[in-house]
Amino acid sequence: MPELRKDPTIGRWVIISTERARRPGVFFDIDENTEEEQDCPFCEHKETQTPAEIYAVRNHGTHVNGPGWKVRVIPSIKPFLRIEGNLNRRGYGLYDVMNGVGAHEVIVETPQHIANMADLSAHQIELVLQTHVLRINDLEKDQRFKYVLAYKNYGYLSGGGRVRHCRSQLIATPVTPVRVKEELVTAKKYFDFHDRCIYCDMIQQECETESRVVAECEHFVALTPFASRFTFEVWILPKKHGCDFAKSGAPGYHNLAVMLKKVLSKIKTGLNDPAYNFLIHSAPFRRNGGNSHQWKTIEEDYHWHIEIIPRLTRVAGFEKGTGFYICSIPPEETAKFLREVTV
Amino acid sequence: MPELRKDPTIGRWVIISTERARRPGVFFDIDENTEEEQDCPFCEHKETQTPAEIYAVRNHGTHVNGPGWKVRVIPSIKPFLRIEGNLNRRGYGLYDVMNGVGAHEVIVETPQHIANMADLSAHQIELVLQTHVLRINDLEKDQRFKYVLAYKNYGYLSGGGRVRHCRSQLIATPVTPVRVKEELVTAKKYFDFHDRCIYCDMIQQECETESRVVAECEHFVALTPFASRFTFEVWILPKKHGCDFAKSGAPGYHNLAVMLKKVLSKIKTGLNDPAYNFLIHSAPFRRNGGNSHQWKTIEEDYHWHIEIIPRLTRVAGFEKGTGFYICSIPPEETAKFLREVTV
Repeated sequence: MPELRKDPTIGRWVIISTERARRPGVFFDIDENTEEEQDCPFCEHKETQTPAEIYAVRNHGTHVNGPGWKVRVIPSIKPFLRIEGNLNRRGYGLYDVMNGVGAHEVIVETPQHIANMADLSAHQIELVLQTHVLRINDLEKDQRFKYVLAYKNYGYLSGGGRVRHCRSQLIATPVTPVRVKEELVTAKKYFDFHDRCIYCDMIQQECETESRVVAECEHFVALTPFASRFTFEVWILPKKHGCDFAKSGAPGYHNLAVMLKKVLSKIKTGLNDPAYNFLIHSAPFRRNGGNSHQWKTIEEDYHWHIEIIPRLTRVAGFEKGTGFYICSIPPEETAKFLREVTV
Repeated sequence: MPELRKDPTIGRWVIISTERARRPGVFFDIDENTEEEQDCPFCEHKETQTPAEIYAVRNHGTHVNGPGWKVRVIPSIKPFLRIEGNLNRRGYGLYDVMNGVGAHEVIVETPQHIANMADLSAHQIELVLQTHVLRINDLEKDQRFKYVLAYKNYGYLSGGGRVRHCRSQLIATPVTPVRVKEELVTAKKYFDFHDRCIYCDMIQQECETESRVVAECEHFVALTPFASRFTFEVWILPKKHGCDFAKSGAPGYHNLAVMLKKVLSKIKTGLNDPAYNFLIHSAPFRRNGGNSHQWKTIEEDYHWHIEIIPRLTRVAGFEKGTGFYICSIPPEETAKFLREVTV
């Protein structure tokens, strides 16, 4: 059973996994070979090579765990967290521990052997986003979970696995992740002072300034953040205020899919198909029976968004030691570059 | 001039560099070739190939910027921050900016073409540590700086450069880095409640438990932290309480050098010479004229230490998106493994 352990010197939870990459004496992560298409377990007609599906978008008349699907959700075979059991929160001298309870699902984004989400149709990406929404809303029913992170690792340098079949992952966690907590606290402070959402203000300033805008439509804006941590980092934000990706409503997902395809295609074409990570930042679950004043606050002050991080440079000791990131090209230049890539 | 920009959604300063890796159209960082010894500018007799030295430990009778040195400090040729000018703090709508003023020095740790600090003698490592101390105490005199980070990137995967000559770096910054602030805040909270240093308590518990101890001597303990973020992460802590590495006193540096050599050699031998980062976490400058009550607090509650992070796995989207780290092997197992490596 994996454990969640809290670093007492900094108040951060860490997952201590016991079931990943555990061949005795093999501690390394240096296998860059990718499997061939015929070995890919995520393709259509290979359904028996994966665990049984949790959910699938299926053609009419096809059977569970058989071919004929468009998007398919399966449990991770190497889960960071385990679905069974309770949290069993406990102390150990100075230290805090709980069982690594959570959910870890894999969303296979296409039945075909396509690697990059940029190469899916906007319609297919919309189906993927709707599947995210459906699974997140289903995981919310499990009272043990406070948060679901939806993310994608594309390419070897991103932490993606050897198999190059387009997929994303959902992790439901029993604690709110520290990065999201920091965003919530900062957004709340800003709202308390200004009575406005900091993200809404940022979107307004960016759309007026234009220099960091990569792409814009009626409902979304894609920009390189003013204080980018990573070169070519891009955020996609909905222009309409809302704290929760999975509650933001159906028509938006089509527009988001079109914007995602555009931005990911610009990154693929302009930067020679780099590895990237893709993350949805959304509010934690706000269930009835919780502190309703707190939930109301989050709905007013937080603003969901997507962060896309191309993996072009390595993170060095300076960044790791200080929390200071170094972005080697000003975001105004990377935005201009991406704006001018035609796709 | 590089800029420090603050991400308003999370309150984190980012360095936006304008002078590193800036060949037009070249955004990538994929050159894994290492230079040959004859091309190394850091070896003895190549002194004219580097900027003029800031300081050197020299044999009697040798000349500045000539051969005959043991440790040599030079300015970085690709500095993250620039020594000239003032901070010029300013706002830009929603955003905060200041000039990227700071110091960036390279400490060449040996005149010979040796790559890994593990292969230096304990005496040589002691000279390096004393050089760190001397330079940090000198940089403290510049009132613009709040902090100096001393760190090392060893090997390509660590963010180290192509040249494999043993060196470390010092960066003086005009703001206290967020990671150090988090440690200071957490340590203060613990001290306020318990009237004890959290690190001292941790050292006591670890030395009693023994399961996470990698090596121990009269003055230092090396351990894999209970909530390790990275597989085989090792911290070295002084048993005697003190908040400031550069004020911790001369006899300690010899013992620390011996401990460092031991731990780095175990990592090199046991893990097949991996890349690693090495960071000294120490208190910010506490100058006269500052808030003296605050300084007294830091001296009581903070505890300097060294963090060593072997780079065995890639950091994936999940970690980047949440601040949650996943450690794939329990630290009790990695400590046992390293304890049993003979060097």
